[in-house]
This record gives sequence, structure tokens and C-alpha cells, in this order.
Amino acid sequence: MGSIAFSEGSSSDIVGERLSRCGQDDLIRGLTAVVTHLHQVVRDVRPSAGQWRAAVDFLTEVGHAADERRQEWVLLSDLLGVTALVEEINSQRPKGATPNTPRGPFYRADAPRLPLGADICLDGKGEPLGVSGQIRDLDGQPIGGATIETWQANPQGFYENQQPDLQPEFNLRGVFQTGADGRFAWRTVKPAGYRVPDDGPVGQLLGRIGYPLRRPAHLHFLVRAAGFDTVTTQVYDPADPDVHEDAIFGVKPELIGDFRPHRDPGGCHLWSLEFDFVLVRTRPGNRRTGDDTTCMQKL
Amino acid sequence: MGSIAFSEGSSSDIVGERLSRCGQDDLIRGLTAVVTHLHQVVRDVRPSAGQWRAAVDFLTEVGHAADERRQEWVLLSDLLGVTALVEEINSQRPKGATPNTPRGPFYRADAPRLPLGADICLDGKGEPLGVSGQIRDLDGQPIGGATIETWQANPQGFYENQQPDLQPEFNLRGVFQTGADGRFAWRTVKPAGYRVPDDGPVGQLLGRIGYPLRRPAHLHFLVRAAGFDTVTTQVYDPADPDVHEDAIFGVKPELIGDFRPHRDPGGCHLWSLEFDFVLVRTRPGNRRTGDDTTCMQKL
Repeated sequence: MGSIAFSEGSSSDIVGERLSRCGQDDLIRGLTAVVTHLHQVVRDVRPSAGQWRAAVDFLTEVGHAADERRQEWVLLSDLLGVTALVEEINSQRPKGATPNTPRGPFYRADAPRLPLGADICLDGKGEPLGVSGQIRDLDGQPIGGATIETWQANPQGFYENQQPDLQPEFNLRGVFQTGADGRFAWRTVKPAGYRVPDDGPVGQLLGRIGYPLRRPAHLHFLVRAAGFDTVTTQVYDPADPDVHEDAIFGVKPELIGDFRPHRDPGGCHLWSLEFDFVLVRTRPGNRRTGDDTTCMQKL
Repeated sequence: MGSIAFSEGSSSDIVGERLSRCGQDDLIRGLTAVVTHLHQVVRDVRPSAGQWRAAVDFLTEVGHAADERRQEWVLLSDLLGVTALVEEINSQRPKGATPNTPRGPFYRADAPRLPLGADICLDGKGEPLGVSGQIRDLDGQPIGGATIETWQANPQGFYENQQPDLQPEFNLRGVFQTGADGRFAWRTVKPAGYRVPDDGPVGQLLGRIGYPLRRPAHLHFLVRAAGFDTVTTQVYDPADPDVHEDAIFGVKPELIGDFRPHRDPGGCHLWSLEFDFVLVRTRPGNRRTGDDTTCMQKL
């Protein structure tokens, strides 16, 4: 009971008081904020006992769907914009620097190192795309010896690790190093967008109400250079109809790519993308930026 | 992208706008409230990427701990006061009426019907307690033919369905019917308080920071009568040191029992508890009160 009775008005204060007696650290501060807002949600929504049970049932289903290969919680966090918000909070960068986006679930740390100019499309399927650009610091000075990793979906919207029987291993992945001029280049094919997994409880629930579940076509980049904050980001195809409604809120104006069409002498479609990355020098004591917010999501 | 860019300031508006385009029903309103507050929690707490990952890991563990026998989500909801708040919101009753508390996980619907005056202690272990009282309406009129179910822990703080090998089946459970005078009576033993399950991720986390995990000694009651709202409640022993800090926020001033000590001719301790229940007539269209908020919790 304590000194005040538990009621709709006092509930979060009473729980907060218990937590405050446990001490003060990040965990307790976090729990207190969660309790405050969770109680406010209940006061706002005023669920019936049946609705509250349905919410608990949903959490139970999400919990059971999450396994080694599938992080249904991360998917929920992604689709409700929470992952992108955590990313925003942790990777504020000066104007002119390339922004971060969540890494996403399809990254592989073991992709092959390739020479500049290599073709990462191992099955020859798709419209050829030449990717090139420069890695620079905020003063415009090139960063030589930087590492740039790339990975992407194929023209059907699938990553090679989603289709181990259909795509060659490491298809559309590669790790490159910039020369002294900070420049990079490789050949690939134009990726397609895709729908996030909708066969679990999160995709089922949100798909049922018609919530956006598609990601626009994009290329992934992970750029590292000694003395600079790591950039994990994606560059988007502005021609994709879903570019204004990315399911996971990754699209930012600075990350819209300039995909230019060309024709080769035989009349076939070719594309080129020139995109520069601007890195920020790591300051001592700087909180490391969110370079693996979603590394748990395996699917 | 939409018309405004995703940022710390705009994030919940942007997600809310997507949800609003999905229509308007309880689910969408609920999701919108959850998103608004979830984003506010992230803005308040400002978790690092690692802390956010730890939160997702915790949800993952809770999800894996929840199974047919154990509802770890309900335990989390109970311990953070959310279950009690949902109960408050759904069972507001006029002054003078007996308040509800969550049913808890140990209820069995198949307990035996017994005649008034029966002894529900089947193993003879504990200090004898005589329970009696009256079931009335708000005008003080007795309610005859009402059904009152009771269940409770034994003097070691265990329910019979927690100890199927140590206690007789249906020990300390029974279903009684009031006479025309609305009165009931049975014999039992004085229960003890107990600690909620602390071997799962919820109990481990909250136990580690020293958060209260004990429930004070109590008796459970489920009172039904035709034409009245069902009351699910608990009556607490004021001598239990945990009565001011019930782990699940069930204790209310109206639910403190008057446990009176006696001595039998042989000098042994005896107890009596007289407790009256005041029921509210069901109004047409009345939302049914939370008589099974926690029916999912199986452990």
C-alpha cells in the first residue's frame, strides 16, 4: 500500500517510487521511463481486459517467432520507427557528413576483398550498374586506404544469403579499399526493392491493416577509415515507387542516389551511380555511432 | 521521406501518419498510442545502440521463457503495475463496493462444491482459520444463492497446483453457496506469503536490482451472483511484513482482513476472519469487469 493507494492516477508514481528505492543507474532510469509511458498508454487506450489479453497474446507470439535466424523484435522495432529513432539519437553528425541508417539483417562480415573495378555480380543477371565515388573528410580532403563494404539485393529483391540455392555465394557483395585519391569503383547490377518478412506475427498484424511493408531499392555501404567514425548507410533509387514510404524509415534526402541511365552500343540499358561519402573524425570519448543497431536480426 | 524528414523530433508523427492512413479502429488507435510513447521513451532514455540491443535481448529472453505453463509477459505486466492498472480502469466501482484485484495464475475452475462449514484444509497442516462473512448488495440486502470460490497458498506459501506431489489435489480450494441470509463459512488454515517466480528473465532482472518480488499472505475469492458484476478479489493479512509492498499491487485498504487470534482449550493458536463482500448490480451494456485479466498466466 505504501502511503498512497494504487489508483489510475497514482499507479506510475507508486511503481516509480519502488524503482527509485532500487538505486540509480541506466537500467533503473530506463525501467522508470518505460513504466511511466506504459502506464500512460494504458490510461490513453483504456483497453478492456480482453484487449489487454490480446496484446499479451501478441507479445507471446512475437516471442515465439523470434529465433536464431529471425529477429521478430527487431522487425517490430524497425517497422514502428524505433530502430531509426535510436539510430538518429546515436549518430547525429555535422551538416555535410553522410548520415547513418540501420545496418539491416543481411550483412555478412566475411565478404571477399576485391580490387577496384571488379564486378560483384556473379550470375550476370540484371541491368549493369557502375558504382563509383569518393570518400572524403568534412574539409573535402580524400581519405585514402578507407575500406568500403557493399551488399545489395538482386533484381528480384533477394540477397544471396536469402537464396543460397539460387544465387552464388557472395553474389552482390564485396569489400574494396580506396586509393590515395579516396576513390572507389566497382560493377554490379541494379537492385530491386522488396517486402519485409510478412509471415511472422509482426508482418501479419501490420500487413492486415495495410501498413507499409516494402523497402525501396537500395545499396548498402559500410565505410571505415582509421581516425573516422564508421558510416553504415544505404543509398536509394529515387525511381522506386516506395522511396517515399520505406518500411523501416531509412530514406533521407542526402541518401537519394543519382542513378543515371545509359545505353551501350548494342542498345542495352546501363546505369551509373556516383556517390561520395563524407566521414567525421572520431573525437576522443565520442560515443561510437550506431554501426550495428540491428546486428541481431539474422533473417 | 514523405513531406517531412524522419528526425528525432518528427519520428512519432511520421509513424503515426502511416498508421492513420490504415484507418481508425481500436487496434490502430492502440498502436498509435504505443508508438507515441515508445518513441518518447527512446527520446527520454537516449539508449546507446548497445543498450537498445540489450533491451531487445531482454524481450527475446522473456519471449523464450513464456510457454504453456509460464506466462512471463503477464509476470512482467504484474510486477510493473500494468495488470493492476488495467484492472483499475476496467473495474471502477461505487464507494462501498468490494474492489477487484487480478485473479492471478493459481486459479482452478474445477474445484469441488462443498457445504457451508466444510474444512478445505485436506492435509491438516497449519494454524486453523475460520472464514465467514456475508455477501450483500450496495443497499445492504443479503444476496442468497451467490457462489463464492476460494483458493489460497498453504502455510509455506505454495498452492496445491504448484506442489502436486506434496499437497492433496484441491487442498485449500472450495466452492460454496450462500444461504438466503447471504452468509458463508468454511474452515481452512492461515496462508503464508510468497515470492513470485524469480527463475525467469523478469524475476532475474528485477530481483537483481532489489525490486520487491514478494506477495503478502492472502486468500483469493471469486464471487458470482445472478444480476451482479462478478468480483475477483483477495483479502490480505495485515500482519504480513510485505502487506505494504505487494509485488503485484493488489493490496487496497478495503481488502485488509481482520484476522483475529484465539486459543482453543488446549492452548493452540486459532484464527478467525470475518469479511463481507458488497456486489454491484450489472447494468445493461456494462463492460464486464476484469474477472480474468490474468487468466493466461498458467504458472
